[in-house]
Amino acid sequence: MALSTAFTKMFGVEHPIALAPMGGSAGGALAAAVCRGGGLGLLGAGNGDREWLAREVPIVAQGTGKPWGIGFLTWAIDVGVVDRALEYNPRAVMLSFGDPSPFAERIRHAGATLIIQVTDLDEARAAVDLGADVIVAQGTESGGHGARRGRSTLPFVPVVVDLAAPVPVLAAGGIADGRGVAAALALGAAGALIGTRFQATAEALVDPSIAKAIVEGRGEDTERNRVLDIARGSRWPSTYTARTVGNRFLDQWRDREAELAADPEAQQAYQAGVARGDMPPLPVWAGEAIDLITDLPPAADLVGALAAQAESALARAGRQ
Amino acid sequence: MALSTAFTKMFGVEHPIALAPMGGSAGGALAAAVCRGGGLGLLGAGNGDREWLAREVPIVAQGTGKPWGIGFLTWAIDVGVVDRALEYNPRAVMLSFGDPSPFAERIRHAGATLIIQVTDLDEARAAVDLGADVIVAQGTESGGHGARRGRSTLPFVPVVVDLAAPVPVLAAGGIADGRGVAAALALGAAGALIGTRFQATAEALVDPSIAKAIVEGRGEDTERNRVLDIARGSRWPSTYTARTVGNRFLDQWRDREAELAADPEAQQAYQAGVARGDMPPLPVWAGEAIDLITDLPPAADLVGALAAQAESALARAGRQ
Repeated sequence: MALSTAFTKMFGVEHPIALAPMGGSAGGALAAAVCRGGGLGLLGAGNGDREWLAREVPIVAQGTGKPWGIGFLTWAIDVGVVDRALEYNPRAVMLSFGDPSPFAERIRHAGATLIIQVTDLDEARAAVDLGADVIVAQGTESGGHGARRGRSTLPFVPVVVDLAAPVPVLAAGGIADGRGVAAALALGAAGALIGTRFQATAEALVDPSIAKAIVEGRGEDTERNRVLDIARGSRWPSTYTARTVGNRFLDQWRDREAELAADPEAQQAYQAGVARGDMPPLPVWAGEAIDLITDLPPAADLVGALAAQAESALARAGRQ
Repeated sequence: MALSTAFTKMFGVEHPIALAPMGGSAGGALAAAVCRGGGLGLLGAGNGDREWLAREVPIVAQGTGKPWGIGFLTWAIDVGVVDRALEYNPRAVMLSFGDPSPFAERIRHAGATLIIQVTDLDEARAAVDLGADVIVAQGTESGGHGARRGRSTLPFVPVVVDLAAPVPVLAAGGIADGRGVAAALALGAAGALIGTRFQATAEALVDPSIAKAIVEGRGEDTERNRVLDIARGSRWPSTYTARTVGNRFLDQWRDREAELAADPEAQQAYQAGVARGDMPPLPVWAGEAIDLITDLPPAADLVGALAAQAESALARAGRQ
């Protein structure tokens, strides 16, 4: 018997699993594969780069007859970006990290489902007030960017569920296998939004060295800070840190962010290391659950496997 | 149908719920109430103070015919403490925070069930090697003390479950309602070890101001550091931080631990504030899940309510 939730019903998808719209790496092929597997594929459009969308949207739109969506970094977009994206007729638009209020109404007015990701209770309340159709409660375990002073998924999700009801909530952060999906449902979420696990798939747009680092890494090797964003001159606002797999550069600059920001030579040394191939081309954004990631499966198969594991975990729980 | 796990079977208890042996506050009355409610009550014996144990053990031993145990801070005890405790014939002894190897064999040899709490995978592996009968996987969401660089409960528990199998694992940290218990079981744990939720009960040995702070506090008000341990001259090793509800003193000294350690006047100012009653008599050790705590029920009723909520959460999960 398949898992059925407010999320699967809202989108008419088979499994309560959504692809986190990871900027750049969640492209058309990955989103389409997640859709084909029975989940909701969300393109990681970042700041809404026109060429990226023009290339990736057709891949997901033509690769699946199922609903798909586009995710943006809210701090990095303007209404023009959203309007152009809406012309592609995505079934859903997801906004993460920043103030969604300038965009919420035009997304809903265009008939797209509005998904807002939140990292604390004030943001959750604001998302409800803005009329979010789905709220994603992101814990600090998640890979890549999140709030500097974030919440943990396990205690955060049920509080957002209570606050948002009847708006369905997806749990995000720290979920990389079916047991995590099952736990999300047990907490009252209508599904799980999963990032890092999908970075390590055949379809993700990531450098092979990054996929390898995720497969080989351990949760205890990940850490959350701004060091690599500072080193690479990223535009991410300072209120967001990113969880990455550690490396030599991080060992050197951990807890010295202000010093690094004031040291252009050190920043150039990082960039030179990347150029030489001493370091991966991008930070290895990865969540704390990477202990559970040991292979690079096709994403459609992965969605089915996660759902089957979740069903079995729920069936076994408390039934020994 | 009651929840049945390797933990409930091992102890012959009704519910997969254990009382975290919170030093000082998990006394005989609270442990006995948890036992009566169908869980496993564990006394929080801290460093094994002789008088404390002589007072509290009879309360739990005579207050319940059911199994109960004693929990110690591993770094604070010696073999003499363990031997004296074993004379009380506890069904279980739990060791947390520190090297359990000097104590494991004598606890098992005495016929007590050995429970070891772990905060990372190296500790989990060591606990398995020492022959732990039960392993508690503690996430950084938990109230009170834990590893400085801790893991989060949601991604940590399933990895420990895989590593320890067939040794049963309890999830700890961030669990304050039945949905959290259900999530623990979905993750593959055999139960939940719960602390903060039991601080806010009729039987906990806490000052009323502390129970009030837990009921009124929010998860986002909690933070993890060593500031209050330094201020009160605590013997806790510097590798452990504690999650507490914030206060004015923390606002002043957050991120300035070394400076505070070198400033006896500032430490005395804190102690004077406590003496004047401006601040609670002890740090308000509390986990990130306190958003979910809104009352001060009798602990026995609470155990039953948590179990019933967990059953219902599992029955509802993915079945909308």
